[in-house]
Amino acid sequence: MPVADTTLPVLDLSQTSIDITRQLCDIESVSGNEGPITEAILVALAGAEHLEVLRDGDVVIARTNLGRDKRVVIAGHTDTVPLNDNLPTRYETEDGVEYLWGRGTVDMKSGVAVQLKLAVELTEPAVDITWLWYDHEEVSADLNGLKRLADNRPDLLQGDFAILGEPTRSEIEGGCNGNARIEVRTFGLRAHSARAWVGHNAIHDLSPILDTLAAYVPREVEVDGLVYREGLNAVGITGGVAGNVIPDAAMVHINYRFAPSRSGEEAIAHLRELFEGYDVTVVDLAEGARPGLDAPLAQDLLAAVGGEAKPKYGWTDVARFSALGMPAVNYGPGDPLKAHADDERVAVDQITACEQGLRAWLMTG
Amino acid sequence: MPVADTTLPVLDLSQTSIDITRQLCDIESVSGNEGPITEAILVALAGAEHLEVLRDGDVVIARTNLGRDKRVVIAGHTDTVPLNDNLPTRYETEDGVEYLWGRGTVDMKSGVAVQLKLAVELTEPAVDITWLWYDHEEVSADLNGLKRLADNRPDLLQGDFAILGEPTRSEIEGGCNGNARIEVRTFGLRAHSARAWVGHNAIHDLSPILDTLAAYVPREVEVDGLVYREGLNAVGITGGVAGNVIPDAAMVHINYRFAPSRSGEEAIAHLRELFEGYDVTVVDLAEGARPGLDAPLAQDLLAAVGGEAKPKYGWTDVARFSALGMPAVNYGPGDPLKAHADDERVAVDQITACEQGLRAWLMTG
Repeated sequence: MPVADTTLPVLDLSQTSIDITRQLCDIESVSGNEGPITEAILVALAGAEHLEVLRDGDVVIARTNLGRDKRVVIAGHTDTVPLNDNLPTRYETEDGVEYLWGRGTVDMKSGVAVQLKLAVELTEPAVDITWLWYDHEEVSADLNGLKRLADNRPDLLQGDFAILGEPTRSEIEGGCNGNARIEVRTFGLRAHSARAWVGHNAIHDLSPILDTLAAYVPREVEVDGLVYREGLNAVGITGGVAGNVIPDAAMVHINYRFAPSRSGEEAIAHLRELFEGYDVTVVDLAEGARPGLDAPLAQDLLAAVGGEAKPKYGWTDVARFSALGMPAVNYGPGDPLKAHADDERVAVDQITACEQGLRAWLMTG
Repeated sequence: MPVADTTLPVLDLSQTSIDITRQLCDIESVSGNEGPITEAILVALAGAEHLEVLRDGDVVIARTNLGRDKRVVIAGHTDTVPLNDNLPTRYETEDGVEYLWGRGTVDMKSGVAVQLKLAVELTEPAVDITWLWYDHEEVSADLNGLKRLADNRPDLLQGDFAILGEPTRSEIEGGCNGNARIEVRTFGLRAHSARAWVGHNAIHDLSPILDTLAAYVPREVEVDGLVYREGLNAVGITGGVAGNVIPDAAMVHINYRFAPSRSGEEAIAHLRELFEGYDVTVVDLAEGARPGLDAPLAQDLLAAVGGEAKPKYGWTDVARFSALGMPAVNYGPGDPLKAHADDERVAVDQITACEQGLRAWLMTG
């Protein structure tokens, strides 16, 4: 019998999902340092004989193979944004509500805790399940573990429906808006500002661009029964050479959040039309995801969870399932406004609610 | 007899003003390193018994005290902007015009060369003369040698008329525009750009400010017979936090060049009126200078030099004389558009013309 390596963090999945959240959070796993938490998950799953466990880098895949006619994929990321003196976790109570406070409690180790607990507990679910915990969600997309898997092993992601455990206050949030960023540039002619008429001021030429942005009324678009609110915003502006020089270049950096009824290509076409005649560079483009709430599995999930489905405004990895043709929703504990916040904390009853909702659906779905 | 210090640069004022320009330029004197050129000037003036020579830091003052009923002040700065592989000087000819090429040839060692030559040559001028060569003109005003003298020893600057040898193609340029810079700021409320409606976009609020700038028609104002052209320009613009954040602050940096008929206070009042309701910070303010061409000495100078007087658009140190109540004009060799340029060069016949114009005036003025 090998001697236990006491330097490895221990994860006890027989505890409550609240306590598992705490255990997971206290294993620091800022993006790039997911090794220890991945090892801990693998050790904790080792005894679960109903699961086929695979590892791909710092992605863990745990699958049931019960021959059910439906398969659902349930995923969560194990990394967090950097700490800011907010570990180790602690419990705190405010206005009669009990919270677990600390980095990762919302985004999204409480979701992962619920998933891990159910993964070992549910030996006979009504559907086959592919559990999936991945790395590098909080950083550049080219490092994202789910993206890597979607690119290299799309077969491992296949299923009839997907749930991503991002924070939604344990309510169903369908799909997500698409996300585009462009840079719109103007060009002039440099000159000494004492003789401005010799030059041409590129900053003054930004005026109609800002007018367009200030006057723009974002759409509210109903997609599969959910209303998505769009947004078009300058997120940066630059220009200028020196205090006595007419500037020959200026730029507005614009972010467009678009409803999932519009493709990325259509979104860019809309922006090019808005800023016709200007130099436009696309610097980022991510497709949205339709909510897919008309799928029968989604209807069952809604019934099991209760409440009303809402649209997800921020872009999330559900779009990666959407791109593979699978309906996908966000469902996890925690208030998304507390994600990344220094006072990140989750109301512990949301963790329990999520656990109960998922269990009810997976046992009867 | 002391042994000559061969490490000191030598200045031979018996040569032509063109050759003296070359000697001066080949003594590198980027702002802050005016020591060696100041020493060379002092040594070169040592034999001129008609001059009372004073030194104040790196300012050299050389005065005649002939009891004339008028005194004129003739000044030039000895520093240059940094080199860019444009020393030592060389002669070059293009389209039949002979040039002296190199840093300082225009701004403004050709003017200083003419002044130095005439300072030693004119032992019996028709007016008393205060010659003045000073340091740190090309950098922050608080280092400027002429400003220091105006603050500490205004008596040394007193006279009935002043000439500053800044480049004017050896034509009289009267006065100068005033110069103000302000920062106009907008403030909003930060939010995630996926939920823009929770925040308020400070960059969008810049829109009316740029509209005002783009639509502004600068005045052309006649002052003492010269027409000054004004200018109102954005010279910088900044704003933005990150690609997914609604920005809570933005700023336009604005430069206003105003005719010398308008005081600095009036200029700022005009700007505050234009941008009423916005947060306005004054970051720089320099009064303009009226051309003063109605002064009898100015009329004599115009007659001696010939040609037609023009307005000076850029702010120059003539405004310091103006502030002391003295009429003052710019008069020196070189094309101001070549000042600070990497291909800085002066047409040598302008040096000779300036020398002849100044000599004619000072002998008969």
